[in-house]
Amino acid sequence: MNLGLGSGPEFDRIRAIAKTLGDRARGLGDDCAFVEAGGEVLALSVDLSVEGVHFRREWLDGREIGWRAAAGALSDLAAVGATPIGLLASLAIPPESSSEEPGCVMDGVGAAVAESGGVVLGGDLTAGPVLTIDVAVLGRVNRPVKRSGARPGDGVWVTGWLGASRAALELLRAGRRPDTPVREAFAHPHPRISAGRWLAAREAHAMIDLSDGLAGDAAHLAAASGVALVIDLERLPLGSGVAAAAADLGVDPHRFAAMGGEDYELLVALPPGISEADTTRFEQDIGIPLTRIGSVTAGEGVSLRQGDERVSLTGFDHFR
Amino acid sequence: MNLGLGSGPEFDRIRAIAKTLGDRARGLGDDCAFVEAGGEVLALSVDLSVEGVHFRREWLDGREIGWRAAAGALSDLAAVGATPIGLLASLAIPPESSSEEPGCVMDGVGAAVAESGGVVLGGDLTAGPVLTIDVAVLGRVNRPVKRSGARPGDGVWVTGWLGASRAALELLRAGRRPDTPVREAFAHPHPRISAGRWLAAREAHAMIDLSDGLAGDAAHLAAASGVALVIDLERLPLGSGVAAAAADLGVDPHRFAAMGGEDYELLVALPPGISEADTTRFEQDIGIPLTRIGSVTAGEGVSLRQGDERVSLTGFDHFR
Repeated sequence: MNLGLGSGPEFDRIRAIAKTLGDRARGLGDDCAFVEAGGEVLALSVDLSVEGVHFRREWLDGREIGWRAAAGALSDLAAVGATPIGLLASLAIPPESSSEEPGCVMDGVGAAVAESGGVVLGGDLTAGPVLTIDVAVLGRVNRPVKRSGARPGDGVWVTGWLGASRAALELLRAGRRPDTPVREAFAHPHPRISAGRWLAAREAHAMIDLSDGLAGDAAHLAAASGVALVIDLERLPLGSGVAAAAADLGVDPHRFAAMGGEDYELLVALPPGISEADTTRFEQDIGIPLTRIGSVTAGEGVSLRQGDERVSLTGFDHFR
Repeated sequence: MNLGLGSGPEFDRIRAIAKTLGDRARGLGDDCAFVEAGGEVLALSVDLSVEGVHFRREWLDGREIGWRAAAGALSDLAAVGATPIGLLASLAIPPESSSEEPGCVMDGVGAAVAESGGVVLGGDLTAGPVLTIDVAVLGRVNRPVKRSGARPGDGVWVTGWLGASRAALELLRAGRRPDTPVREAFAHPHPRISAGRWLAAREAHAMIDLSDGLAGDAAHLAAASGVALVIDLERLPLGSGVAAAAADLGVDPHRFAAMGGEDYELLVALPPGISEADTTRFEQDIGIPLTRIGSVTAGEGVSLRQGDERVSLTGFDHFR
């Protein structure tokens, strides 16, 4: 089974699982699973958030933790062009939690799914050693956009702005207090539901949401499509406050934009011939920019370029 | 919002969450959520299993842990009369796990869903302090059977056999080695998918799966339906080896059957007039017994009777 994933130990484990499952699994390796029902196509995805791995309670309150967990799952629906119906949320609550905590977390989950036009359909609640939230999302989709449709000649585009979530994380790790726009990008990411639908309707060839960081997620899209992506770091749209945070921390801001996880923007391969009128219309309709950051070519993997220079990915990972 | 849940602190928390969510939630409080798509009805549920809470690794191997986690979620589909399409499984893997463990767990998940006629549709994999599995299931259902349809005069019936899973748990807790049939009931419960469909087609009025134990789950069904259930403990069908295990442990075997969790049998309210020919046909079609254990009456709550004596629920909970 070709899962169309980039390299890395996490993805090796997923490949091993897929091999073990054999024909007991179907359609693994995209942002969502697709199921047909009565002529409609439904999209499903799950996203697991664990305290100490995905968040720390000293950085976020319960409502923000719930919002982020739901936003991460809803972003998978955005990435295939789906419209959310709703979600089911499983919570494990540690013994030291206040009796209000489950309600606060679910209030954040509820706010995120309501913003995306869906509802909470169900869930499960249990004890556990650390706060854990798994969100399963369900949506409807007219024309599912997969990771595998990019073709040489396509443009590579990104919605919104990059780097602020990673900038906030690095500031928090350094014991600093992020400015409001940077902190908001980290605490309240907005799944790009309407952007995903707009791009799906505009014949997007391939799409993925940026949950693990542009460089890694671009590698998945390249592998799934059997193409290479060339991305120009100078063109990456930096979020508000990212340049200042990078200057504070003595880091090139493009590193936050290229390696920062949890931006939850969409990376999309669009056919050639997208005009300025198109991007203007996107911006008017959706309220965020659509920026061309590179091209699809024959080959494999992702080339990051800064001006004329080729930048290695590993060089970018040193501050993990 | 009337969630139709029995009493208890866990259910108070769920009621508090439902109140917080308000109209951002829909249809909470049944075994599954229901969504319409293209004229079909889909059923969804999630079930979260956490190491140290739901299982211990010294009692079960990775494949058994995966099987049980999937079976628990699939049992929710059985409880509404649905046919599984598939599932998505989220795994958190602790640092001490072998590199094979995720594959073993997912092998068990895959075996359980294959037995139920579905496939693995997707998942998520991350690190965590303890082995954690959340399973989201999706199925199709012609006539969803809810918890809320029981009426005075209905018979109360149960599929299969009760008590073996709890007997195994108590033996393991006491450092004893359960006999094969008792251990199998604990390690490899079989979701009653075909039984649930059969009963739904036979106009079952209300149904619930026995995940928390007969007494507690019967209380949910009674509360959701606005009726009382009268259950005769002497009629409970004991699993193979339960009487011997209870004798070993010096416990009344009916306690295992009434209070034992994770039997994953179905408790069902059927209209009056079910004949011996009907139960014989069930047994021939499904391969397990269908046993009448009591009646639905006007009122509220669950009365457990042993002969002429009324047995209190709290009295049964002392060995928790």
